[in-house]
Amino acid sequence: MPGLIQSIERCSAVLRLLAAAPGRLRVKEIADALDLPKSTAQSILRTLTHIGFAEQDPRTARYRPGRALLDLGSTGLDANELRAYTLNWADTLASRSREEVHVGALRDGGVLVVHHVFRPDDSAQSMQTGQVLPPHATALGQVLLAYRMAAAEDAVAGGLEAYTRATVTTGQALARTLTATRAQGWASSVEQWRAGRAGIAAPLRTFGGLVVGAIGISGPVERLCDTRRQARPALVEHVVAAARAISRDLCGPQP
Amino acid sequence: MPGLIQSIERCSAVLRLLAAAPGRLRVKEIADALDLPKSTAQSILRTLTHIGFAEQDPRTARYRPGRALLDLGSTGLDANELRAYTLNWADTLASRSREEVHVGALRDGGVLVVHHVFRPDDSAQSMQTGQVLPPHATALGQVLLAYRMAAAEDAVAGGLEAYTRATVTTGQALARTLTATRAQGWASSVEQWRAGRAGIAAPLRTFGGLVVGAIGISGPVERLCDTRRQARPALVEHVVAAARAISRDLCGPQP
Repeated sequence: MPGLIQSIERCSAVLRLLAAAPGRLRVKEIADALDLPKSTAQSILRTLTHIGFAEQDPRTARYRPGRALLDLGSTGLDANELRAYTLNWADTLASRSREEVHVGALRDGGVLVVHHVFRPDDSAQSMQTGQVLPPHATALGQVLLAYRMAAAEDAVAGGLEAYTRATVTTGQALARTLTATRAQGWASSVEQWRAGRAGIAAPLRTFGGLVVGAIGISGPVERLCDTRRQARPALVEHVVAAARAISRDLCGPQP
Repeated sequence: MPGLIQSIERCSAVLRLLAAAPGRLRVKEIADALDLPKSTAQSILRTLTHIGFAEQDPRTARYRPGRALLDLGSTGLDANELRAYTLNWADTLASRSREEVHVGALRDGGVLVVHHVFRPDDSAQSMQTGQVLPPHATALGQVLLAYRMAAAEDAVAGGLEAYTRATVTTGQALARTLTATRAQGWASSVEQWRAGRAGIAAPLRTFGGLVVGAIGISGPVERLCDTRRQARPALVEHVVAAARAISRDLCGPQP
């Protein structure tokens, strides 16, 4: 049939074989079963293992279905795992931007802060890890909603609370914001949650481009924005670079 | 990372999105979430739908995870479905070969006959649908074991019963038989189950090359084999052609 992707069809056949004989098949057996060259079967298995859909028993070198298949509904990353991936780059971002850094992920309709790095100066600050932020009013949240439309619909259905006069409070305005966020690949929020404060955030992506979190900086409007209240390009660049570096790690071997 | 298959990574990302928001996402939303061109997202969704990993709600045109994902352990085809795909071609094979035709699938270590077409003459015959045949001793079974090595190991572990002096009764001999079957793409069994009888069978394949059944003919050795007791090439050709035609249907839209 035209328009079908052969490697996805093969991937489903491999998953069915693994599910029918968990922990018992070698590469050669899978290649034989599907009449594939061993190198092709090897590529498929390497990819399936990489994304967690298959696992190799280190003792026997045989394959079994992976954990990620069993909890497809989740992103396959819990808060601690996501945090582990972001630790180093969040520090780097804080020192480059001279602002505080947050890493967040969507949980139950809010933005759960999974990691927080203080602004690198001597000011008094309080740890915000574990706090939940409103997604429609923060740059972190807007990034997360932009790539998870069902969550955006839920946010609208639940009512968009006005924190300041700049908060986005209608479905239409939120849709415009999210479209712009996708178009530029990052979000900025200026006094939409707290007066005098701004944020800049970018998405953290894992395999296949799936957004599993966001990283961002926040601080006083006058430091984060230029005189036209636009996010300063140099800061945007730092945030986007950190997000890209973490995304690369998220698509690589486990930390 | 080198050697990974991008479309499989994207497929896993789409499945996770669908699982996280079942029945709520349109093609455009999935494309936006993963930063893919809409045509690419469309190809992935079409393929996932085709193999049963995704389903489209006909009313809303939105996607949800497919039934095949939920019962990965099975082939996604029960005996009745497999039978439905084979009805027409089994009749054609019987009339071309002038022999009786069986369609079988592995169930609980045996070959379940899911469809049986009588030899097209006036001889007395009894319906064998529902019977279970020994996999190591029949051409149907050898085809099924050749592409499901775990089942072959189970058969050996369970002991290979000798029905005649020609029955394959050692693991080593069975492995040789199965390797030859894979190499030629079909199996023949001559007096391995019943004295005086022979069989020729070929695999039925669905998406990705997964073998989900076998079709074969059986009859007296002198009709199925030449004087050197080799399967007659013209009959092999009929069996293989029927198997290929059914496999094409198994990879197409539902009957």
